[in-house]
Formats: sequence, structure tokens, C-alpha cells
Amino acid sequence: MFTSRHLFSKFKMLNKKFERLKCSSQIISILEKPNINDVTEVKGWVKNLRIQKELIFADVSDGSCNKKLQVVIPKNLSTDTLSYGSSIYVTGQLSKSPRGQLELVADTLKVIGRCVVAEGYPFNPRTTHTSDYIRQYLHLRSRTNYMSAILRIRNAVTMLIYDFFHSRNFINIHTPILTSNDCEGAGEVFKVQPDCETTVKAMMKEGRDNDAVYFGSKTFLTVSGQLHLEAICRGMGNVYTLGPTFRAENSRSRLHLSEFYMLEAELAFCDKLEQLQIVVEKLLKHIFTKIRDTNEADLYLIDKENNKLPSWIDKSFIIITYEEAKNLLNKKDLTVTKEGINKEQELALIEYCGGVPVFVVEWPKEMKSFYMRECQDDNTKVDAFDLLTPITGEVVGGSLREDNYNKLKAKLPSEQLNWYVELRKFGNIPTGGFGLGLERLLQVLCKISNIKDTIPFPRWPHNCNM
Amino acid sequence: MFTSRHLFSKFKMLNKKFERLKCSSQIISILEKPNINDVTEVKGWVKNLRIQKELIFADVSDGSCNKKLQVVIPKNLSTDTLSYGSSIYVTGQLSKSPRGQLELVADTLKVIGRCVVAEGYPFNPRTTHTSDYIRQYLHLRSRTNYMSAILRIRNAVTMLIYDFFHSRNFINIHTPILTSNDCEGAGEVFKVQPDCETTVKAMMKEGRDNDAVYFGSKTFLTVSGQLHLEAICRGMGNVYTLGPTFRAENSRSRLHLSEFYMLEAELAFCDKLEQLQIVVEKLLKHIFTKIRDTNEADLYLIDKENNKLPSWIDKSFIIITYEEAKNLLNKKDLTVTKEGINKEQELALIEYCGGVPVFVVEWPKEMKSFYMRECQDDNTKVDAFDLLTPITGEVVGGSLREDNYNKLKAKLPSEQLNWYVELRKFGNIPTGGFGLGLERLLQVLCKISNIKDTIPFPRWPHNCNM
Repeated sequence: MFTSRHLFSKFKMLNKKFERLKCSSQIISILEKPNINDVTEVKGWVKNLRIQKELIFADVSDGSCNKKLQVVIPKNLSTDTLSYGSSIYVTGQLSKSPRGQLELVADTLKVIGRCVVAEGYPFNPRTTHTSDYIRQYLHLRSRTNYMSAILRIRNAVTMLIYDFFHSRNFINIHTPILTSNDCEGAGEVFKVQPDCETTVKAMMKEGRDNDAVYFGSKTFLTVSGQLHLEAICRGMGNVYTLGPTFRAENSRSRLHLSEFYMLEAELAFCDKLEQLQIVVEKLLKHIFTKIRDTNEADLYLIDKENNKLPSWIDKSFIIITYEEAKNLLNKKDLTVTKEGINKEQELALIEYCGGVPVFVVEWPKEMKSFYMRECQDDNTKVDAFDLLTPITGEVVGGSLREDNYNKLKAKLPSEQLNWYVELRKFGNIPTGGFGLGLERLLQVLCKISNIKDTIPFPRWPHNCNM
Repeated sequence: MFTSRHLFSKFKMLNKKFERLKCSSQIISILEKPNINDVTEVKGWVKNLRIQKELIFADVSDGSCNKKLQVVIPKNLSTDTLSYGSSIYVTGQLSKSPRGQLELVADTLKVIGRCVVAEGYPFNPRTTHTSDYIRQYLHLRSRTNYMSAILRIRNAVTMLIYDFFHSRNFINIHTPILTSNDCEGAGEVFKVQPDCETTVKAMMKEGRDNDAVYFGSKTFLTVSGQLHLEAICRGMGNVYTLGPTFRAENSRSRLHLSEFYMLEAELAFCDKLEQLQIVVEKLLKHIFTKIRDTNEADLYLIDKENNKLPSWIDKSFIIITYEEAKNLLNKKDLTVTKEGINKEQELALIEYCGGVPVFVVEWPKEMKSFYMRECQDDNTKVDAFDLLTPITGEVVGGSLREDNYNKLKAKLPSEQLNWYVELRKFGNIPTGGFGLGLERLLQVLCKISNIKDTIPFPRWPHNCNM
């Protein structure tokens, strides 16, 4: 047996020359710390071309930031394939233009991939494409300024969420996507089976339903990680998850997706709804403030009117009860039915409140889920909130959880959830938590009316392309 | 219409007293900066009780870290319900024990949730439970020291991965879980349909297959986000994703799950396999080093033998070709068949190499996926690697991607992937990427033989509980 690495004289190790790979030529790094006269190289896509007598000016982006680097190309370096949309490799020297702008003066230029609009490239530098048009080309749309700006913001918000909870010692938990639980009443579900007939046949047991062959019970895509978070919260304290959830509804509204991301957090030793509301208000203000430091140019590109912090950033969010909200809307001839407050009414409430986000609290028990805790002074109500904001209405929903074993057992919709009640039997603690729709938050943050533009690959009824 | 918030005199805003909520009494914070004589409060679970004449000593954990805080309880404060596993709320003063240990001397004690082993609590302080036993109680197992240590390490590794890529300007992309693509040849897939018959009937169109009713095409759970990452990489540069992937295989090995997490990264302008290997080697060394700074006590708790950095941490990973690996194994009477290198052989190779991770490169074309690029000097081979490590064998797989439009088109397994070829038509760039199995990495890091203990809620054939 070989025991030492040096015996492998003929085996290679990584060549030191590749140690250079450090994104050192990314445009974001060049723009952050420009060293005039430095010789450097850039790889990216041509976003704009201006052709003059002796020189060609190309705005080059590599996606690392919203800004482009101006590349000055002497005409003798140019080729026929240099065009809008083509990918290029340029070496040259960083310098300042007569107007003081940073630019790269090209020594060498290589077109890596050409891009010919006449061959079917759907985007054009001289046209402003609508987002409906861009959305038809899911596989190419990250090449547009509009979509790449949104995806950079989504990336930044995702990181802000992780940092917010990590710095407060919350533990990130990957709650399961596949679950045998379908009965939280949070909407219609997708069921999951192996596609392969041979696998199904091989695993079939007598008397077992076809849907239950693989896992031994019928299996669904998760609609929420809450119940699983509660299990971990009762062992490890504050926890959170950020992951995909699913709804099999036949809805094609500008606010719904079949696959969307939810941030869910569960707080240990939480027995006041206000504890949750404090965290939600802080988190939203943190994201709205920070994103302007890091992605202001992206926000501007998506909506030129979205150029300052919302007016509510230094105000307290408003809290009203469901009864108060209902009375207010009824007075405005927006009659609230038994179905609850609809989207139009949510947005009207926000308008009444001057655009400041509103927590609606003290919900009638029958309108909310079985696991919510009754209000202490009114057992027809539960300690839950919906947070409403402009553009989308509801963005966050939260509640205290019923922590009384017997009360919860009496309300349990299915025996399959016996494990959930049993969490209350041993070393139980009061908990509360909330769920925030990431795509809706992005709609509010970027002022995007259609939710399908806030996620890289949207899925909705009749649409699961790629 | 109301236009200003102050009109809402009866509407509440958040009470400032709840601003206190800052996890200030988390045990991790108390232990980090202990202020002797401070009056403080702690909420947590009793992990151990030692009863003496006048005093009771309780080791209390709130899950925020591996360490426990010793709470000294005068007997007159105690109640019958104070026991192992119960949750308690204690106020008192921080002080030093005669031996110099930090402890909280209780002024008040409240048992929040009792825990009686005789009522069915499966864990016992005086027994060392096997991981097979603990795994039977998925909903309660985060209350064990073993499982909570693993979940804290999983949380830390997840954050290290995000920080590693974020600090290098990679953009995080949520690749889709639902996809119409089943044909990457990466294993058997799960299919997805709405569970509700009424929805299916309402959406049915004539001549359409039942499986395709909801999305318009048959829809599956993703086996990899790679192809989607490639689409975004060609618009925005370096990208990565960390999310769930699925396999509908009938395998119950200690290395397979039906739902598991993959880190996938795609590098723009990447035309050397070494570029990928550098990133992978750096990432692994970064994680193995950093986790010892942050979670050493957790590692020790899982495996007392795992008390130092692996011997390979300051060595270069080894690179051998598939042919070399095959010849080496054949010489050792571990004959490699057409099926490729099996698990036993992978582990033997690692042993030959003294336990240092091994990149196996230059794979026969027919053994790998259609999208991999042929080696420049041998078109029977592709530019791909498997990275093998102790305990699990393969942990990472990566390759350069075929970037030639015509070559790729000729190898395409399905017309459904036309979008994937079209990525090469406009402003194309060379890319390469890799996928790393998070659970297998955790197995290697923590020396855990069964993959089911590295994920909060494992799913495998006949098992999708909760």
C-alpha cells in the first residue's frame, strides 16, 4: 500500500499559475479601486457601441455590477463580429478620458462569442422592451439590464436576510421540501411520485395506494416549513429558514406563483405578538436601508422614480385590529365579507394610513389556522398579524402558536400531526413565528407590479418552461 | 381619506419595552462576555441535574451553543417538575464557583414545561443512545446533544459557503425546483401534479396528458440547477446556488437521500479545469479550517477522535487521470468494470493516497453527461473531475461545458433542451462548474457514517415522516 503522497511522482498537483483566478479582473473590482495606468484585462459583454472616425467606444459589463466599463478600441483592432451583445476579451491600460471618466484603452481585442440580432437574438439596444416581452425569453433575459438589476438585488436581499439572523444567533434550518403533511389549510398542494414505472412496480406492496408506494405515505411539496421549525425551535431555540414553497392554485394574478420563496422564523420563549412584530419591523427597515447603500444604481435602473427611501422608514409601523380595519373599510363603502379583507381593501387600508405599513392584529379564530393561540382576553380571536404594505398588500403573516397540549390536541385537523402535538408534551416552551414572501418583498422594494419578474425562473399555471 | 398617521389616535404602535428583545439572555452571549455580579435571566432546557444537600446544580442549554450554563438552585426554589428535559425560566446573579467556573445563582425559578420520561420521552440522561435509536424520533431529536451539535455545524457550514462566494462577487441564484427537464441523465426523477381532483378537472384541455394538465408539460423535481445556472452565467458572470435536489432511486445506502442539498457554482470565462479545481480545493480547506474556530466543541461532541485538522489541510490535493486510477486499482485486484469505479474502489484509492483528497480527471466520454467538453488532445475523453475524499468517496463533481453550438446540438438528448443550446448562439462564453453534496461534506467534516444524520429531516425510500 502507498502511504505517502510523494510516491506519486507522476500525479499532478494544481499548477500555481491558476492561483491567479481571483476575479481580479471583474469590473466591480476595477471600478472600486481604479489604478490609472494599470495594465489589465476584462472579459464581458458589449452593452452599447458608439463608432467614431478613429475609435470605437464600447460599454462593457460582466454582470458583477450595474455599472459598465468604457473600453476605447482603436479601429484597427476591430472586427466584423464586434457588436451589441457579443462577448469580448480585452487587454489594455486603465486611463482617464478627457472628461475624467475611467476607461480601458484596448491593446488587444478578441470577440469570444458573436451576437447577431438577425439570427434571432430578441433584444435590441435601441428598443425599450416591456417586461412582458422580456419574460418570453426566460433563458436569455438575465442579459437585459432590467432583469440583471433585479437578480443582483435579489442576491443582495438574500444575503441581508442571512446576515440579519446569523448575527442574532438564529440557527438556519433546511426544513424539508417533501412532506407527508397536507393539512395546514394553507392552500392547495402538489403531490409527488417517482416518474419511473419500473421503480414503482419494484417497490409496490400489496394493498398500498399507488401514491404511497415510494415513501410509504402520500407525499406532497411543502407549503410552509413552520411546523418543522417549531420542532427544532423546541430543541435549539431561535431558528429560521429561507427556501422554496409551493401552491397548486389555478391563479395567474400578478401576486401569485406556483413556486416561491419564504423566509420563516420561529422565536423561542415568545409569548407576546409584539416580540415578533419588533423583529419584522427591524428586518424590513434594515433591508430597505441597506439595499440603498449597495444597489442604488440597480434600483434606479428598474424604476427611475424609486430614488429615495420610503417615507415610512423612520416612522413606526401602524397596528390596528381586524375589527377596526373592517369598520374603517365599511365606512368607506368597501364592505368586508365573511371571506375577509380582499386585495383591493388591503391596498385601500394602506392608502388610508399614508402608505405606512400596517399590522392587522386580533383576527377572528375561524379565519386563521388551527395552530394559532387564542388571545388571552377574547377566545374568539387569535394572536396573529398580517403585515400589509403598498403594491402587494400582505407581505408577512405571523402568530403565537398554541402551546397548550390539550387545546391543540382538540383542534388538530389530522392524526398525522400527532408528532406536532407531542412537541408540547416534553419540556415545552411558548413560541411564535412569521413567514415573509421573498418575491413580494422584492416587489415592494423595487416597485415591480408583476411577481414573475422577481424570481429567476417563474412557475405558474401553464408555465414551467426550461 | 386619512393622510397622516397621527389621525389614528387609537391605533397602537409597538411598545418600547419590547425593544429589549435582543437575545440578550442567550447563553452564547453570556458565555462570550460574562459580567460577574450581573443580574440576568436565562430560558432554556435542563440537560443535567445534580442534587446535593442544600443545593441543586442544573446544566442549562438554550441551543444557542454547545456549552451549558451551570445554574445553582437553592432547594427551597425547587419544585417536583424540575427534571432532566424540562424547560425553565431562571433569574439570578452571575458569579464564579469556588473552582472558578461561571454559574448563575438563582433568585427565582419557574418550570415552563415539564418533561417526564415515564410519559414517553425517549431520551434519558444516563443512557448513551445510538444514532439509529435517536433517528426514530425525528421530531424530538434536536433535543439531543448529538443532533443539535450536527445542526449547529450545518448552520455554520451553510454560512461559510454563502460568505465564501459572496465575498468573491458570485451572485446567488435560486434555480427552480420544478422543471420540465427530466433528461440530464443524472438519475431517476420525481414527477409533480396538483393533488386536488377539482383543480385538475378545471384545468384539463382536450388531448392533454393528465401529467401535463397544470403546467402544460410534464413537470419534475430538479436533479441539478446546473443548466439554469449556465443560462444566468451567460448574462451575469459567476453564479452559485445552494438548494434542495431530488432523486427517486430505490437506494437505502448510508450515502443516499431522496432529498439532499447541493452547492452548485458556475464560473464565467472558464476554459481550464484547473480553474474549477482551485476554487473547490480552497473552499474545502476554508470550511475545514474555519469550522474548528467556531464549532470545535460541537465536533468534539460528535466524535471525540475528531480533534484536529485533517492531515491534508496543508497539502495539495492529488490529481490522477481515470486511466491511472483504473490501472492502480486493477493492480490491487480491485478490477474496474465498464460501470466505472465503485464506492469500495473510491475509498481504496483514497487510502492509497494517504487519505489526501483526489481529483480523478480525464473521464471516458461515454461515462459522463452530454454537456461536458471533450479534452483538447483526446476526443474520447471529457474535461471533468470527481473529487474523492475519505468516508464518502465522491463529494464534488465538476466539468467544463461544451461551448461549441454545433457539437452540443449534435449531442442533445432532447428537443426540450433547445433553449440550452441557444445559450451558445448569442454572445457565448466558455464556462465550467461543479456540484458539491452538502450532506456528504458534513459526513466527511464530522466523521458521520450515515448521511441521514446530517440533515434535519431525512427522506429516503419508505421514509417521509412528518
